[in-house]
Amino acid sequence: MANEFSLINKYFKPLGEAIASPNVVMGIGDDCALLANKPGYQLAVSTDTMVAGVHFFADAHPIDVGYKALAVNLSDLAAMGAEPAWFTLCLTLPGRDENWIKGFVQGIEILAQQFAIPLVGGDTTKGPLSLSIQVAGWVPEDKGLTRSGAKVGDHLYVSGEIGWPYLGYQVSTSSLQLNDADQREGLERFLRPLPKLALGANLIDVASAALDISDGLTADLNHMLTASGIGAELDINALPLAAPLGAMSDDIQRQAINFGDEYQLLFAVPSDKQTQLTALQEQLSIKLYPIGTLVDGPGIVDSQGNPIAPSGYEHF
Amino acid sequence: MANEFSLINKYFKPLGEAIASPNVVMGIGDDCALLANKPGYQLAVSTDTMVAGVHFFADAHPIDVGYKALAVNLSDLAAMGAEPAWFTLCLTLPGRDENWIKGFVQGIEILAQQFAIPLVGGDTTKGPLSLSIQVAGWVPEDKGLTRSGAKVGDHLYVSGEIGWPYLGYQVSTSSLQLNDADQREGLERFLRPLPKLALGANLIDVASAALDISDGLTADLNHMLTASGIGAELDINALPLAAPLGAMSDDIQRQAINFGDEYQLLFAVPSDKQTQLTALQEQLSIKLYPIGTLVDGPGIVDSQGNPIAPSGYEHF
Repeated sequence: MANEFSLINKYFKPLGEAIASPNVVMGIGDDCALLANKPGYQLAVSTDTMVAGVHFFADAHPIDVGYKALAVNLSDLAAMGAEPAWFTLCLTLPGRDENWIKGFVQGIEILAQQFAIPLVGGDTTKGPLSLSIQVAGWVPEDKGLTRSGAKVGDHLYVSGEIGWPYLGYQVSTSSLQLNDADQREGLERFLRPLPKLALGANLIDVASAALDISDGLTADLNHMLTASGIGAELDINALPLAAPLGAMSDDIQRQAINFGDEYQLLFAVPSDKQTQLTALQEQLSIKLYPIGTLVDGPGIVDSQGNPIAPSGYEHF
Repeated sequence: MANEFSLINKYFKPLGEAIASPNVVMGIGDDCALLANKPGYQLAVSTDTMVAGVHFFADAHPIDVGYKALAVNLSDLAAMGAEPAWFTLCLTLPGRDENWIKGFVQGIEILAQQFAIPLVGGDTTKGPLSLSIQVAGWVPEDKGLTRSGAKVGDHLYVSGEIGWPYLGYQVSTSSLQLNDADQREGLERFLRPLPKLALGANLIDVASAALDISDGLTADLNHMLTASGIGAELDINALPLAAPLGAMSDDIQRQAINFGDEYQLLFAVPSDKQTQLTALQEQLSIKLYPIGTLVDGPGIVDSQGNPIAPSGYEHF
């Protein structure tokens, strides 16, 4: 009986205690965690499940699994412009494999430390390998960056190159060979995406709408368009494709664009905020890529006005 | 691609929208939900996973699965003295079985409506059947009912009869036959436990410590004792056993007591709060059962001072 509790005390409690937080009144170990309010802010919460054999290979390195499980959740906070506050973890394991758990916790800890987000609770159960993380973060009252605020005339941006996770996935399944540097880059972007939290928090006063690219560029753009009730003219030639894709076929490029798993932000910026956006790029030392304009909808068209059907990850 | 989203729109979004809540600024459909603070309160959060074949039979009725998944989580809020605020749901399904989902949502809705707690977000993924629910609730600042506040001399109480879920489980696996009324009672208590939210909220100013009985009476009592750094003298003869157990062997009685899955509250009350506790019983029209006293520790002893080893559900 003491086994679940000894696992929690050995691996998960330290992951909470390692990160001092003004939010945490009481962390792991009681029926509930207790968290303090932050006056003037609202709480943003998001949760994502990852299943072995579906979202990651069953034999994936546990450090990579832990890292990415927290990364994809933090990316949702970034897309809302929220500052990380705490997270919980539900972990289902076939058995008590302490080496796996140790690696998994190490992977989580990389991002938990980097973004000062403590683990405050969870559940450890027996069953087929899977996990759900829930993150909570703070956004200034009524400033949350939703998907629904984009307006006709706004400019569409993406926060980085698109297609590296597709290349990394192909490399990891030995379906593709690239030069060493590109292989490393692809694998890194596929296995260790960095959530764009600083950008998201700074977009609160600049962007009219935002989301993170998880299902695929056109699928996620379509979510924004549907929520905002407008359309988009996408400048295909302006898409910042990962360099190795330049030499590949149109078909492969399309697959890469719609592969998803990018965790770049896709966001809309009104014309009168372009100066602020330029300043923000300098302040954060990042490059942002204009990829189109929001127009009367519905749907996505290219620069010649030809419709582009959204396509992306199929959940069922 | 639209499949996950159509499931969400058809079954899960209505479950959020059906319940008006001052807490919900923005519910299902964006990267995060946005929730309002409640000044003067702290947030209590808890999460529990249920896996098919481990926590419920793979062929269990989906209404029962949905009901119990929310019930066990609400029970954690009750044990903390918290008032329900919102919940999220991570659901992993082998395929798109709409009948199952429909029943499952109906089961959740029974308690969501009864306790006015809206669904605000989640994730639906493909994989072996399992689910994690996370609940959030409000407790008045620094009044949360923890496990660690029990003191020597406090009296130990349980909120209802113990052993019915064990009997219900045995009946449901055809390992036991009882008369019709007892079978119904056992199954009802096993499949449809009612979280003790009114009691929990009212115990905030009365109890020194509380938890809900999920692992088994002695195992959970031991959690309270460890957290509080004391011991307990348990009056075995005073335990309010489910009536059918009276005719069964000591061994079966012990198994029933330590079966867990009860979702009754176990709590400690100082001597000077006994009058308030009596008043509370009348106010809520409930019967509470004194089952022992807190003493110098460690561990549990019976009325003759013989040690009782804690025993309960083995997670691994």
